[in-house]
Amino acid sequence: MEKYAASIDDVRAAAERIKGIGHRTPILTSKTLDQMAGRKLFFKCENFQKIGAFKFRGGWNSVSMLSDDEAEKGVCTHSSGNHAQAVAYSAQKRGIPAYIVMPNNSPNVKINAVKGYGANVTLCKPTLDARKSTLKEIAERTDATVIHPFNNPNVIAGQGTAALEMIEDLGELDAMIAPIGGGGLMSGTCITTRNLLPKARLFGAEPKGADDAYRSLKEGRLLPQENPNTICDGLLTSLGENTWNILRDHLETIYTVSDEEVVKAMKLIWERMKIIIEPSCATPFAVVMSPEFKKLEGIEKVGIILTGGNVDLSKLPF
Amino acid sequence: MEKYAASIDDVRAAAERIKGIGHRTPILTSKTLDQMAGRKLFFKCENFQKIGAFKFRGGWNSVSMLSDDEAEKGVCTHSSGNHAQAVAYSAQKRGIPAYIVMPNNSPNVKINAVKGYGANVTLCKPTLDARKSTLKEIAERTDATVIHPFNNPNVIAGQGTAALEMIEDLGELDAMIAPIGGGGLMSGTCITTRNLLPKARLFGAEPKGADDAYRSLKEGRLLPQENPNTICDGLLTSLGENTWNILRDHLETIYTVSDEEVVKAMKLIWERMKIIIEPSCATPFAVVMSPEFKKLEGIEKVGIILTGGNVDLSKLPF
Repeated sequence: MEKYAASIDDVRAAAERIKGIGHRTPILTSKTLDQMAGRKLFFKCENFQKIGAFKFRGGWNSVSMLSDDEAEKGVCTHSSGNHAQAVAYSAQKRGIPAYIVMPNNSPNVKINAVKGYGANVTLCKPTLDARKSTLKEIAERTDATVIHPFNNPNVIAGQGTAALEMIEDLGELDAMIAPIGGGGLMSGTCITTRNLLPKARLFGAEPKGADDAYRSLKEGRLLPQENPNTICDGLLTSLGENTWNILRDHLETIYTVSDEEVVKAMKLIWERMKIIIEPSCATPFAVVMSPEFKKLEGIEKVGIILTGGNVDLSKLPF
Repeated sequence: MEKYAASIDDVRAAAERIKGIGHRTPILTSKTLDQMAGRKLFFKCENFQKIGAFKFRGGWNSVSMLSDDEAEKGVCTHSSGNHAQAVAYSAQKRGIPAYIVMPNNSPNVKINAVKGYGANVTLCKPTLDARKSTLKEIAERTDATVIHPFNNPNVIAGQGTAALEMIEDLGELDAMIAPIGGGGLMSGTCITTRNLLPKARLFGAEPKGADDAYRSLKEGRLLPQENPNTICDGLLTSLGENTWNILRDHLETIYTVSDEEVVKAMKLIWERMKIIIEPSCATPFAVVMSPEFKKLEGIEKVGIILTGGNVDLSKLPF
């Protein structure tokens, strides 16, 4: 048995499935932001990905791997937003039903987008218990395959393709950093980067108001996130067993940032790069701009995964 | 003597000067927006250009063409924003002084950006008379070369390089559309497009609250813009003699759109394309989304120049 839920071969296979269906997103740079950070930054723009977020990668990889018999019954999941869109879009692409459980406090732009992809949306109370029990009921009733947002090995492998494309395009990087919610993206990024760039340093970014991965890494055991309180609506969940196993063994450290730092970083990217990113997406750049990160030595080129751009424009934090 | 202030050879020469200094900006597409418009749309993203707008092209072309004796005394101009940044940035790049007259109601983000490029900024009343007289006084005092925002032939040639890159990258297009303020971009776009794609149809876009070019084309004579009233702060000025001569002979027609249509178009591009554009920049897409434009026949591929992304994020119209 493999030590981790996904291997570099799984990531490469996912990349083949995604090719021609998803976008090979651009990697942008900004001299101004480089000067401010004191390093060369490479931004992988998953806000330009299908459905406006990296989650498409894991969603499509999972949906496309289903057998025809499984696919026919459809897929289901619970998600606060982008994973919901990813599964809905992927199901529509394959022509199968999608049943999506969403917390009733999800941004409207996200709920509408999921419905726009033809999915059946069930709103529930914004608690993990409500999400799980609602999903269980739906899965039992429909026999649809549950696509877990981050703990599913096929999702982890799919998310790892963003880092794969970065390394293919850029070659050497001294460090890679991504946000951590449930840890799917960060896990895939760890597997890919450690295999292709053994010396690259791996960092996670979390909001202080949902710092379960930071606390877990510090204590050496998986701690759940209780009562998260942050503007980063995509990073509220706890880690899973599969993602924790990978993060524990690969991450050098996790940095946490305040919502204030996140909003400042988000605004800076909007103003200077002229691209739209959501708050969760700004956490790694907020880390890179922090005094703590700036004083790290021996890091010249940093890969930053910009995770998504699905913002409710009527509720901006500035 | 040439019939027009700039020729295709002037545009090609400008492109050589700009190469390696400015960005060859990406051309983005969106299947969703194509479906909504009923056509294939190609967006030339000048919001990703140096200083966040196409104005860099004309500014740098003009500044780089100065003799060393001229350059030493510096350059000056009046501008409500992006041209000011373009001249300031270009002067800094060449290591010469820039004197910029700006109306005192310019967005803060634009005034600060100009100062950030090391220019001397003089604020004046927001009238054309005040701008002209202040500039005249500065030019006489410093002997700096005046770089007119749109009537200067070298500016027109520089702006024409955006369309040149589009046609080089895309080949055939059935139509090209750009916004009209003073008409520099549209003039350059006309010269380039008519020479390289003789059959392509040329359209201008204006806000209803600053429709001087629309009225001029309708009456067949250059009419000034008095008391403009629109959210499109980059499109307030009247045409010049040089730009009017070109627009009069090249444009099939000019379409006007309300501020409401502009804001709707702007928001749609933010949401769907995840890029930041300013209101002025949204006018051609607002036109393309109008029932009047949609009913035009024989137009499949449309080139749209997205002019800039310098928005004051603290004053968004939604």
